[in-house]
Amino acid sequence: MSNVYDKAQELKQALAESEEFKALKSLHTQIDQDDIAKRLLENFRQLQLDLQQKQMQGVQITEEEAQKAQQQFELVQQHELISKLMEEEQRLSVVIGDLNRIITEPLEEIYGNPNE
Amino acid sequence: MSNVYDKAQELKQALAESEEFKALKSLHTQIDQDDIAKRLLENFRQLQLDLQQKQMQGVQITEEEAQKAQQQFELVQQHELISKLMEEEQRLSVVIGDLNRIITEPLEEIYGNPNE
Ligand SMILES: [Ca+2]
Ligand SMILES: [Ca+2]
Repeated sequence: MSNVYDKAQELKQALAESEEFKALKSLHTQIDQDDIAKRLLENFRQLQLDLQQKQMQGVQITEEEAQKAQQQFELVQQHELISKLMEEEQRLSVVIGDLNRIITEPLEEIYGNPNE
Repeated sequence: MSNVYDKAQELKQALAESEEFKALKSLHTQIDQDDIAKRLLENFRQLQLDLQQKQMQGVQITEEEAQKAQQQFELVQQHELISKLMEEEQRLSVVIGDLNRIITEPLEEIYGNPNE
């Protein structure tokens, strides 16, 4: 497996050097240095986390909570840095999904493709 | 991202060419050609799947079911091909986990390491 681990290191390096990753990192740093943006984002993440935990515990989200989450989302979207950050995060999350699919393709030879 | 996708393809190739992957594939083919082994494994996988689905639906597993699963596991473990297959599957699953951790390391620079 040594070659597999070498190739994984090369892939990690390529990802770290990609424009997309650098853009995400830079946006994150900019937000971290902007008190208002930082607080806005932290509040939004905390709200998301709280709702996720409720859902995982099987607790019904109230209409009021859903509305508040939607309002917070619209609010943070109006902040240019945060809106760009979320766009880059979405982009990178698609790439990571692609990478996982590519890497596990050999297993489809054995187990078949669950998406087919 | 083109270099990232190139590197992912190289990693996929390295994985497909690894001794561990070839061993797993060969064991799977051997079992597929052995009626008894094939049936044993299929029954065991189906039992596992049924129990997993129950757990996901929040249905309590009975003591009888847990015992049956344990007995089936001990039974299939006594079949050399199946026992080897499960060992190789376990090994490969550790490797895939490692690869995911390596590839997403750059994200730790941004979000921190959730395991620390
Ligand atoms: Ca090497
Ligand atoms: Ca290239």
